[in-house]
Amino acid sequence: MASNLLIRNVRPMGGINGDILIEAGRITRIEPGLAILDVRVEDGGGRIVIPGLVEAHTHLDKSLIGMPWYRNEVGPRLMDKIDNEREAKTRLGIDPIRQSRRQVLASVAQGTTHIRSHVDVDTVNGLAGVEGVMRTREELRDIVDIEIVAFPQSGMMSRPGTVGVMQKALELGADVVGGLDPAGIDRDPKGHLDAVFDLAQRFGRPIDIHLHEPGELGAFSLELIMERTRAVGMQGKVAISHAFCLGMPNVEYVGRLIDELAELSIQILTTGPASQPSPPVAKLRAAGVVVGAGNDGIRDTWGPYGNGDMLERAMFVGLRNNFRRDDELEVALDVCTRGGAQVMALERYGLAPGCWGDVVLLEGETVADAVVSHLPRALVVKRGTVVARAGTMEPDPSA
Amino acid sequence: MASNLLIRNVRPMGGINGDILIEAGRITRIEPGLAILDVRVEDGGGRIVIPGLVEAHTHLDKSLIGMPWYRNEVGPRLMDKIDNEREAKTRLGIDPIRQSRRQVLASVAQGTTHIRSHVDVDTVNGLAGVEGVMRTREELRDIVDIEIVAFPQSGMMSRPGTVGVMQKALELGADVVGGLDPAGIDRDPKGHLDAVFDLAQRFGRPIDIHLHEPGELGAFSLELIMERTRAVGMQGKVAISHAFCLGMPNVEYVGRLIDELAELSIQILTTGPASQPSPPVAKLRAAGVVVGAGNDGIRDTWGPYGNGDMLERAMFVGLRNNFRRDDELEVALDVCTRGGAQVMALERYGLAPGCWGDVVLLEGETVADAVVSHLPRALVVKRGTVVARAGTMEPDPSA
Repeated sequence: MASNLLIRNVRPMGGINGDILIEAGRITRIEPGLAILDVRVEDGGGRIVIPGLVEAHTHLDKSLIGMPWYRNEVGPRLMDKIDNEREAKTRLGIDPIRQSRRQVLASVAQGTTHIRSHVDVDTVNGLAGVEGVMRTREELRDIVDIEIVAFPQSGMMSRPGTVGVMQKALELGADVVGGLDPAGIDRDPKGHLDAVFDLAQRFGRPIDIHLHEPGELGAFSLELIMERTRAVGMQGKVAISHAFCLGMPNVEYVGRLIDELAELSIQILTTGPASQPSPPVAKLRAAGVVVGAGNDGIRDTWGPYGNGDMLERAMFVGLRNNFRRDDELEVALDVCTRGGAQVMALERYGLAPGCWGDVVLLEGETVADAVVSHLPRALVVKRGTVVARAGTMEPDPSA
Repeated sequence: MASNLLIRNVRPMGGINGDILIEAGRITRIEPGLAILDVRVEDGGGRIVIPGLVEAHTHLDKSLIGMPWYRNEVGPRLMDKIDNEREAKTRLGIDPIRQSRRQVLASVAQGTTHIRSHVDVDTVNGLAGVEGVMRTREELRDIVDIEIVAFPQSGMMSRPGTVGVMQKALELGADVVGGLDPAGIDRDPKGHLDAVFDLAQRFGRPIDIHLHEPGELGAFSLELIMERTRAVGMQGKVAISHAFCLGMPNVEYVGRLIDELAELSIQILTTGPASQPSPPVAKLRAAGVVVGAGNDGIRDTWGPYGNGDMLERAMFVGLRNNFRRDDELEVALDVCTRGGAQVMALERYGLAPGCWGDVVLLEGETVADAVVSHLPRALVVKRGTVVARAGTMEPDPSA
């Protein structure tokens, strides 16, 4: 579905007023006072227009959105949450088709046009998650682009048979090879990372590894990832999600890690976590490291927070990084748009002629205002088609 | 203004359905199926009811709500922000009457029934802030209770004459003696704290000190505060706002500080700051320390964040403290209600017969749901009078 649309009277990135013409799904002109006939017109009302928000780290298969409230009484350890969730999928009936669809619609209504989702792959639930999210991806292909990461949530070396399921997931249609705490969870950093890089090499796919490991342990795993990236020539094809270790107090060590990340074009994905050490966004970008962001799990057995709003996520990134100046808030939004787009290697992403007509109209006097207020999105456009208005899908797919 | 009101079909703190009868502004009965005639009735629709939210740390005199967007280009140091703001008050025309009124109305519409506001007192702007907030307090006395802290934002010992202005503020009607970073800002911890405690003793007022000082420096100032609290017998009358030092890595030292805070009944006020070390809420409460919360400055020259919503603040407190379980989210809400009420020593606060009829109806299946979703408040009641509905003041005071 690729449409024609003229959006009048908008301010690209909060700048000078103009009109945007989208033809056959792509932006063809951005200039003031366009005189075009025979095209659907939307009046932007002087609002800010940005390219589509990019949800670059989430888990579409595990949200509990729309299900009865889940009373969380889970233990404090990471393994408590992992074991609880694997079992809860059956007990609560967390259908990955239904739940991914619900989360995607919530996200799109809030201006997300691209999603990278990690999807659980394990020896108990097999490929049910990947199959479910693929169904949703197919159904909603006209309103959002979804990339699937095969994610060994329950461990890989520690659960024999998982590598085989990971391979099947990639054969089935997963786009990216996932990984998870090679030391902290899988207890075999060399084995885990060798397996991840081997899958990536065999299938020619990029890598995105969850790395919650703190401090020097996380830095060790990061070094192992960097060694392998260099050895097999996967520069620009590896992303690290969370990377809490980059928030450790030893800034001299962190500085050396950041320099090497930049040299290897390894990308960082953050949620701006309030309760964890956090990758320093400004420092990473100053060193040339691409930083994207994601909401992570939305209202799941891990925790009750979240609603899928990547504009609110930009606020969280700003709060976590003590961004107060307007130019800093603009960086936070850039992370949640262009940053994620670079991580996902999206083609024709942006607000310029030639790019896809994936744009969002924001309420607010300035970009910083739009981020901190994150009011319902006035208009969400996917390849020239209006898909949401005033925070609600159009047409309402639940109707 | 103290009214009669019957609120049918509500769930106190998310529990069993019942009705609440408010007579002459006070709750007189909470039970199912009350048969009362000749009283105004509101149907709660099965919603959660809680006592009024307590904004226990904010700055009513300095918000820029409703003014043109302020482009923040302020330097990184605390003194940059202080100097910038003192000058901006005149340059931007930050009228403390108008601005405090705007912030109060935004807060009340979101369920806040009690506010403790620090108000700047200095040798340049004198008592203009205190006078302005007192005007608003008087005008809006029927819809909210406001407590004023005389706050030496620009320093006290470092700016001769400030102690005299502080004294005038207390004579005029400020309720609490404020203080600010005795070492980090005022450069004279002994002098600053002696002056603060002297004012408190002379006027018989409680104390609330901003303490941003990190790590061991903050702990030193905290020790000086505890020494004076003990020496003059002000147990239970001293609060520390922010207290970032309690988030320092040396947990053994922090543990000793917490034990002494508990012994002296010194209260802690937090915002749940994402970018700063933060007082550990669960540990403090386990030790018996009262913890309240506040939004701090709302959209001012310090930073653009905030909207006055104390239910969203409960979410921030939860996020900062890694609260994920339902019982933990209930703690976060308790901090934003009863915790702040204890700090402000509010009488007849709560959800029981005898308490003031200050209640808020929340959307949500459970308390945790209400906190993480923080949807517009269905109903806000002050001493038995409906003051806001569906997130909007009733009647609309701007109309």
